[in-house]
Amino acid sequence: MRQKFCLIAILFLAATAASQAPPPLVVSPEVHADRRVTFRFRAPNDKEVAVALEGPGKPLPMQKDEQGVWSVTTEPLAPDYYGYTIIADGVGLFDPSNYAHKPNFLYRSSEVHVPGPASGPASLSWETGDVPHGEIHHHFYKSGIVGDQRGFFVYTPPGYDPRGKQAYPVLYLLHGFSDDANAWTEVGRANVILDNLMAQGKAKPMLVVMPLGYGAPEVLAPDSGVFHDRAITERNFDKFRETLLGEVIPRVEAAYLVVKDRNARAIAGLSMGGAESLLTGLNTLEKFAWVGAFSSGGITEEFDKEFPGLDTKSAEGLHLLWVACGTDDRLIDINRKFRAWLTSKNIKHVDIETPGAHTWMVWRRNLIEFSSLLFR
Amino acid sequence: MRQKFCLIAILFLAATAASQAPPPLVVSPEVHADRRVTFRFRAPNDKEVAVALEGPGKPLPMQKDEQGVWSVTTEPLAPDYYGYTIIADGVGLFDPSNYAHKPNFLYRSSEVHVPGPASGPASLSWETGDVPHGEIHHHFYKSGIVGDQRGFFVYTPPGYDPRGKQAYPVLYLLHGFSDDANAWTEVGRANVILDNLMAQGKAKPMLVVMPLGYGAPEVLAPDSGVFHDRAITERNFDKFRETLLGEVIPRVEAAYLVVKDRNARAIAGLSMGGAESLLTGLNTLEKFAWVGAFSSGGITEEFDKEFPGLDTKSAEGLHLLWVACGTDDRLIDINRKFRAWLTSKNIKHVDIETPGAHTWMVWRRNLIEFSSLLFR
Repeated sequence: MRQKFCLIAILFLAATAASQAPPPLVVSPEVHADRRVTFRFRAPNDKEVAVALEGPGKPLPMQKDEQGVWSVTTEPLAPDYYGYTIIADGVGLFDPSNYAHKPNFLYRSSEVHVPGPASGPASLSWETGDVPHGEIHHHFYKSGIVGDQRGFFVYTPPGYDPRGKQAYPVLYLLHGFSDDANAWTEVGRANVILDNLMAQGKAKPMLVVMPLGYGAPEVLAPDSGVFHDRAITERNFDKFRETLLGEVIPRVEAAYLVVKDRNARAIAGLSMGGAESLLTGLNTLEKFAWVGAFSSGGITEEFDKEFPGLDTKSAEGLHLLWVACGTDDRLIDINRKFRAWLTSKNIKHVDIETPGAHTWMVWRRNLIEFSSLLFR
Repeated sequence: MRQKFCLIAILFLAATAASQAPPPLVVSPEVHADRRVTFRFRAPNDKEVAVALEGPGKPLPMQKDEQGVWSVTTEPLAPDYYGYTIIADGVGLFDPSNYAHKPNFLYRSSEVHVPGPASGPASLSWETGDVPHGEIHHHFYKSGIVGDQRGFFVYTPPGYDPRGKQAYPVLYLLHGFSDDANAWTEVGRANVILDNLMAQGKAKPMLVVMPLGYGAPEVLAPDSGVFHDRAITERNFDKFRETLLGEVIPRVEAAYLVVKDRNARAIAGLSMGGAESLLTGLNTLEKFAWVGAFSSGGITEEFDKEFPGLDTKSAEGLHLLWVACGTDDRLIDINRKFRAWLTSKNIKHVDIETPGAHTWMVWRRNLIEFSSLLFR
């Protein structure tokens, strides 16, 4: 038996040698039965360490013990998925003890899951349930419009049969600024949410297509137009729309059994993706009949210029225009102004104000509510 | 225009507020034209910071400047993808300035790409080329054997048509200990490699299925059987084989146009996955005719017990048994002993020794060579 153990130790050492990193020495995060969460981070020489939890609150200062391990325990948290960042002497870090993290081009956030019920009357739609699951397909192509190699994701619902005859409507679902194309599945849990809603009969069977939302990827550079140059932001919006209409939708409609009709196409997104949903959806009403904007930002207040053809008459064919924002979000003002403008133009829409800030806790709930209304 | 800039700034601030983390302040990694790489990490109060690059070398000590930014520049590196870990006062960290990192349950490695040619006579198969791309499908299911919710990935080759008639052979490709099921695509670039090999006519069109390799996921716990208990390791191997044969293969063969025949099924993997490929493939020869082991580890030296039915006669139907290991890998000895045992049993196989350690640089090259030999 000694020899056997030795072989296993060699396997482990080989893996260790490959990564050259010592194994994690602390447990973090630790979710307690009462839903308090303890975060820990070893940094014996740091002067100030805090954990910034997704949401509007201030970072929580951590305290160092004699082993050089910093820790803090939260109040009980509502069941949800929370992003968080360790801020060590001013530098935002992933929690090195935690596998789960958010894909994001600019920010480093780990993720903690405070579990809630996956079934029953109080079930939470983002909890993985014992229900039929759809699939997520990652497609790759060279964009002739942007010039890069890029991809998009397609969620197919449970029971989707590529060899069958049933055709489905499609929700085009857009991520926010700094996110990657997999944000809606990896962080937003869109596939889990749709699985659950369909199992409960609360959402119609549909495909969800999640493209890369950057028409001008240079918008992500630290010295990019987000800070200095409106032109790059507008190019980002314009070229995104071109990639969606000219590259993504044709590929989806060639590869999948989908209804090729505006009544069967919805577009929605969060933050930058909310702006893209409005700019694309409301300016190509011949393509989309269902439009949603979650905490949208990036559109100017010159709404007449942003939506030149939109009026009472042209908007009549819209089955749903759903504009949501959290009341703790800095973008609530521009969203209120936009909705007031819609009202002034006599354009039918749904006003949604929810608790919450510019967070995925808000957007997951937005998706649950919005997707339940589609294609009815 | 002032107003417009202001709106964009609000969008950015909203995103910043959401993550609560300051933006990255340093550029890291920086790949120079001569293929040297500079790594930087801000940690004003740390005493000792180094970067551990994937491979057998020792961590490279970093030097601190007056701003508290540590840095080091490597010698020129051969074009490849390299994992690396920042080791700050003994704690292994992701590089917070870098988006690219490896998915891994136990180790924190960022990734740096030293680019090489994607086309031409010296092209490198892991470089994204301007060639037709396959897709990656993520499937989800509840395992009746293990009891958890889990997934597997399926690569479909360019031109795969679920509504067509052509059926394909399948390579079952297994990750190593501590990896997640997406390791072969995210780190191993298996889809890119297959795209390129097929475009060059060097690999036959095939599907590649990448399941989760843990039959006993508790093997990943820090105090697990890897260190203390052979029984958990054996359960991990046994239950993995059950999930593959009883859950994954039936799902793949129901959902895809594949040839349901041992001559059209290959199995290969790295490290723990190499052991699983041997234990599953060579003990169910009625299912597989092509077997590959890359740097395999975890099998005991009691080969007669590990492969009770394997002999010259039963192995005759194997089209390929391909056993590879890097000469700088601690597992080279057990691999040599295993190959010597195969020879003593008069079992035809291919001995491969390459330069390199227990690294993805070795395994990407293994996949290129092995997949080119399949289904011919």
